Amino acid sequence: MTSTNLTFTCQDEHRAWLATQAAMPLGFRVGATRLSFVPAEVARPAAMSMVLIVLDRPTADFAAVFTRNAFPGAPVLVGRQRLDEETVGAVVVNNKIANVFAPGGVDAAERLCAGAAGILGLTARQVIPSSTGVIGWQLPVAAMLGALPEAAQALGRTTLVEAAQGIMTTDLYPKVRRATVGGGSIVGIAKGAGMIEPNLATMLVYLLTDLAVPRPTLRKALAEVARATFNAISIDSETSTSDSVVLLSSGRVACPSEAEFVGGLEHVCGDLAEDVVRNGEGVRHVVRLSVTGAPDELTARGLGKAVANAPLLKCAIAGNDPNVGRVVAAAGRYLGTRGLALDPTKVSMRLGGHPIFAHGCFALDAESERQLAAHLAQAELYPSSAPAEGVFRPPIAYPPHERCVQLEIDLGAGPASATVLGADLTHEYVSENADYRS
Amino acid sequence: MTSTNLTFTCQDEHRAWLATQAAMPLGFRVGATRLSFVPAEVARPAAMSMVLIVLDRPTADFAAVFTRNAFPGAPVLVGRQRLDEETVGAVVVNNKIANVFAPGGVDAAERLCAGAAGILGLTARQVIPSSTGVIGWQLPVAAMLGALPEAAQALGRTTLVEAAQGIMTTDLYPKVRRATVGGGSIVGIAKGAGMIEPNLATMLVYLLTDLAVPRPTLRKALAEVARATFNAISIDSETSTSDSVVLLSSGRVACPSEAEFVGGLEHVCGDLAEDVVRNGEGVRHVVRLSVTGAPDELTARGLGKAVANAPLLKCAIAGNDPNVGRVVAAAGRYLGTRGLALDPTKVSMRLGGHPIFAHGCFALDAESERQLAAHLAQAELYPSSAPAEGVFRPPIAYPPHERCVQLEIDLGAGPASATVLGADLTHEYVSENADYRS
Repeated sequence: MTSTNLTFTCQDEHRAWLATQAAMPLGFRVGATRLSFVPAEVARPAAMSMVLIVLDRPTADFAAVFTRNAFPGAPVLVGRQRLDEETVGAVVVNNKIANVFAPGGVDAAERLCAGAAGILGLTARQVIPSSTGVIGWQLPVAAMLGALPEAAQALGRTTLVEAAQGIMTTDLYPKVRRATVGGGSIVGIAKGAGMIEPNLATMLVYLLTDLAVPRPTLRKALAEVARATFNAISIDSETSTSDSVVLLSSGRVACPSEAEFVGGLEHVCGDLAEDVVRNGEGVRHVVRLSVTGAPDELTARGLGKAVANAPLLKCAIAGNDPNVGRVVAAAGRYLGTRGLALDPTKVSMRLGGHPIFAHGCFALDAESERQLAAHLAQAELYPSSAPAEGVFRPPIAYPPHERCVQLEIDLGAGPASATVLGADLTHEYVSENADYRS
Repeated sequence: MTSTNLTFTCQDEHRAWLATQAAMPLGFRVGATRLSFVPAEVARPAAMSMVLIVLDRPTADFAAVFTRNAFPGAPVLVGRQRLDEETVGAVVVNNKIANVFAPGGVDAAERLCAGAAGILGLTARQVIPSSTGVIGWQLPVAAMLGALPEAAQALGRTTLVEAAQGIMTTDLYPKVRRATVGGGSIVGIAKGAGMIEPNLATMLVYLLTDLAVPRPTLRKALAEVARATFNAISIDSETSTSDSVVLLSSGRVACPSEAEFVGGLEHVCGDLAEDVVRNGEGVRHVVRLSVTGAPDELTARGLGKAVANAPLLKCAIAGNDPNVGRVVAAAGRYLGTRGLALDPTKVSMRLGGHPIFAHGCFALDAESERQLAAHLAQAELYPSSAPAEGVFRPPIAYPPHERCVQLEIDLGAGPASATVLGADLTHEYVSENADYRS
């Protein structure tokens, strides 16, 4: 299923909000185009979007973090090399094919960079390549080179909306967030809908700022902020081969302070991370899971992820069914795997603010059941129903509400804490992923 | 969803096969009964099955392994204590409520043991309790004590079929397997359909043998065999709070040799483990995943489990969609999480015997796509379709075919190997688990 199957509706008042969010920082131009091609691996036509992000002047102040998947795609391999370059001037992004372990993948990525560089007056090594989509397929390099001039002609200074739409795959709607810092801004766009987990998701994020922040500060800030935002979400426990977060500074506006910059970056990245979960494939509930009282942060975050990823709990949440026993099962599984012996009589849990577990046992009755079910229902993005043709197309309004399922687990075993964002597991997820490529 | 919603059809020739499988070893009696009750936590009536397994004479020769979940249920806590008893004489099993972290759970389990002991002329400490079902709810002890005499009256020496049916929850069909060793036999029954993973599944298994094998040998054999059978399967990566495998010897028949006994036990446990996966909640494809060329067994098994549990791959298999890029993504995710740097150019993969990955890249074309899709389709248990009322009820024939999706991964990095059994992720899994308790 590609983005062409999906639609989002946007009220007029929200169009104004989106336009405000997506206003470009100084010193950048972006453009997008689409092309049709027939993948070498299957005999069916396919469509691809390409996006160019271009700096007015190449910059030394850039940062990027990439997937920790041990089998990364060609654009990630090339992107890591680019971190050593003195300056970069552009990013070229495509969806539909991820360029991962396809024959000649690195060469294909470099040829695209060279093509873009030729049009933009850069060297190939000043261009960062970025791809998302099917793994194992080859990029249609000739067709993409042919489409590059169109993308360059579309370059504009006004809005990131088209770029945010151009990098979508199964995303339901574009994700754009901004922060104002002093006289400048940080604006980010994100693609990400499935294969989303810890060590950066199948997630492409481009953060543009006109604030003048030197390279070492940018890199430190991005690593720190990514840890508490993009690395604290999980839609399906999958870590993509292609995750990339790129941060580019045009340096056009004086930055008031490093702390204010980091605060703004946290704001943008935190919002984008939540947008990515809320727009996850088939996601109908976002779950905000707070773990406190853990012996250390590794355990807090690990247990949070384990519970957030437990498929039985995810299914129960999808059905607005407060089957809270599955929380204990998932937490116990994680602790058992780690060989950690915690005292269950010290553990307490709350769902939607309602106490559900304390002193080593559950406190459940018909009234609490009703309240817990109501809490799950209020966080639902849209109700699910089985369509006649078997393919779920959520009737989603944009922007979606920001309500969450609130789950709190206190382990009573120490001072550490972590917050993790997860999601339910729905028919829509299965439908999207049982035949993604068709 | 309870077992009352589900049916299985059994051809006449298979009834004969089932009866042969389920013939009782010497020295045991089993009986089952059903009761109705209203759980304290919800205002809806529910049904429960109880099963009694009774030895003619209490035996010192028994073994059990339990879940490694750090938050085990009350029956597991009690069962672990029973391992220190000189003899046991009976097992009392119920479905519908797992008795995990309900108020007074251990006391409830002990009262049931005492009730069964009173009827059977045993002490409470000679009875092993076992429960499966909803976590957090309280056992209806009074109603269960009232039903025990019926279960005792139903005790018979002929067949384990009723017991295998009595321990079912969302299982589609009873699971019974046997091995003949010398003049005796080992016969096992299993319950298990969801919450199935590594460290024993939401799985209850009772293995009865009339072969005379002393306690130390029994315990060593069970631990070893469970590792390569029950601990090598995963339906959904969940480890239950209640997993229990109990092995009882009546000692009525001389055992030819320890090796033959272990061989028979492996046979029964291996078959039951595969039965559990094939009958997993919503499972339409069983995946047999062989990892070879690993640096050590931990890596081989861990990578196998990680790939078997990758939701995107599981969804693709459900849709007969050979999206093999997801295999590489899942393997790379596991290696990345472990911090293991493997050379992808040494890795090779085959699906259904067809080479799909070698020398660091995929080899895919329209013809291989067709062959891979056909391999997935031949392993399908039944085709899925979205029913009007939204609840999937698979029209499953019993016994099901034994074909698998065959996935081979050679890491080219060492001598170790492991085989893991996994399953797809289907609409039926979501349907069953989005409202299990209703």
